[in-house]
Amino acid sequence: MEFESYFPVWNQLTTEQQKLISDTVTFRTIPKGHIVHNGSMDCAGLMLLRTGQLRAYIMSDEGREITIYRLFDMDMCLFTASCMMRSVQFDITIEAEKDTEVWVIPPDVFKKIADESAPMANYMNEIMASHFSEVMWLVEQIMWKSFDKRLAGFLLDETALEGTNKLKITHEIIGNHLGTAREVVTRMLRYFQSEGIVKLTRGTVEVVDAPKLKKLIEK
Amino acid sequence: MEFESYFPVWNQLTTEQQKLISDTVTFRTIPKGHIVHNGSMDCAGLMLLRTGQLRAYIMSDEGREITIYRLFDMDMCLFTASCMMRSVQFDITIEAEKDTEVWVIPPDVFKKIADESAPMANYMNEIMASHFSEVMWLVEQIMWKSFDKRLAGFLLDETALEGTNKLKITHEIIGNHLGTAREVVTRMLRYFQSEGIVKLTRGTVEVVDAPKLKKLIEK
Repeated sequence: MEFESYFPVWNQLTTEQQKLISDTVTFRTIPKGHIVHNGSMDCAGLMLLRTGQLRAYIMSDEGREITIYRLFDMDMCLFTASCMMRSVQFDITIEAEKDTEVWVIPPDVFKKIADESAPMANYMNEIMASHFSEVMWLVEQIMWKSFDKRLAGFLLDETALEGTNKLKITHEIIGNHLGTAREVVTRMLRYFQSEGIVKLTRGTVEVVDAPKLKKLIEK
Repeated sequence: MEFESYFPVWNQLTTEQQKLISDTVTFRTIPKGHIVHNGSMDCAGLMLLRTGQLRAYIMSDEGREITIYRLFDMDMCLFTASCMMRSVQFDITIEAEKDTEVWVIPPDVFKKIADESAPMANYMNEIMASHFSEVMWLVEQIMWKSFDKRLAGFLLDETALEGTNKLKITHEIIGNHLGTAREVVTRMLRYFQSEGIVKLTRGTVEVVDAPKLKKLIEK
C-alpha cells in the first residue's frame, strides 16, 4: 500500500494500530480553491498530503488575511483534526492552493493512536514545533522587517515554488498572504518596477532581476 | 515528595521513569532579572516552576524585544530544553520576572522520558499547542489591533497579575513587552493620562479608570 510509505512513523506503530488506520483511512481529492478547514467548526481528521499544496491562514474581522504556513507533498496536516487537541485555541483556515490529494484519518482514530503511541505523539510534537517556528519567524518579520523586504522575500519564495519568474497572481492575493491592503502591495510593486526589479502586466508579476531582490532582503 | 505533585503526568509514568527523574532532578533558585535561557546556546533542561514568574521573549538585531508568553507556578518550561527538540528553529530568551524557584530535569533525561512515554509526549504537545495559540493571538494583535488597544490590554493584564493598580514599570519595559519604541509608549500613556485613564509619576503607571481601559479594548 502506497499510503504506508507516506505515513511518517508507520513502522513504529503496533500491528493493531496499523490495522486500525488502514481500516478507516479514506482518500480524497480536493480541488484548487476549496476550503478544507475553517475555524473550530470543522474537524475532518488528520490529513496526509499525497500531492498538492495547502495554505493555512488567519483572517481578521474585516476579512484581511495572512498566511501562516503551507503544506506540500508528504506533509501531515494536524489542524484539520484540531478538535482533538484542546490546547489549540485559535481559528485557522486551510485551503487548497493547488489540486490536492490527501489521505484522511478520522479524528477519533487519530486521537486514539496519538494517546497510545509515543512515536506518533513525538512526531506531532515535531510538526507543532516546526509550525511554531514558522509563526515566530512571521512575528519577527511583521515586527521588525520593512514591507519592501517582506514583499521581496515573498516574490522569491513564490518563483521558487512555482518554478517560474512569471507569477500569475493578483495584488490582492499577495496582500492576503502578507496581511496587507491591496493598495500597499500595488504601490510597492510599482516602485519595484521603476527600479527594474519586476515587470507588471494584468494578473502577472514577473521577476526580472532576482539578484536585486535578494540584495534588498540582505540589506 | 512535593515535586511529584507539581509534575503533570507523574502518575502515568513507569516506576523506572519516576526513579530516573527523582534521581536526577535538581532544585534551583533564580533571582529576579536573571536570564535562564538565551537562544540556542543554552540547554539547562526541562524546568518546572514551583513559584515565581518567567517571561519568554524574542529580540531584534537592534535589541528591541517583544514578549511571547509567561510562565507561572506549576507551569513547565519546555524551551529551556529546546536543544532536545530539533524542530524548534528560533531563538528565544527566558528571564525571571520575579524571584523564581524551579525543579530542573536534565535535557537527556527529559528526552529519554519524552521518547518513551506517550503521556509525557502528549503533555508536551499540549504545552506546545498552547504557546502556539498565544503566538497566534500575538500575530492577530500586531497585525490588526491598533496600539492603544494593545497598550490598554497590557495595562489591564499587568494590574491583574501584580494585584495592584499602581504598576512599578518604566515606559521602556512596557515597550519591550509590546515590541514598540519607548517614545511611542510615552506618547500613548500621556494621551491616556489626558483622558483621565492613568496617572503617571516617575517609574510608575497608575490605572485610575480601569472600566475606560476595558471599553477601549472592546471598541
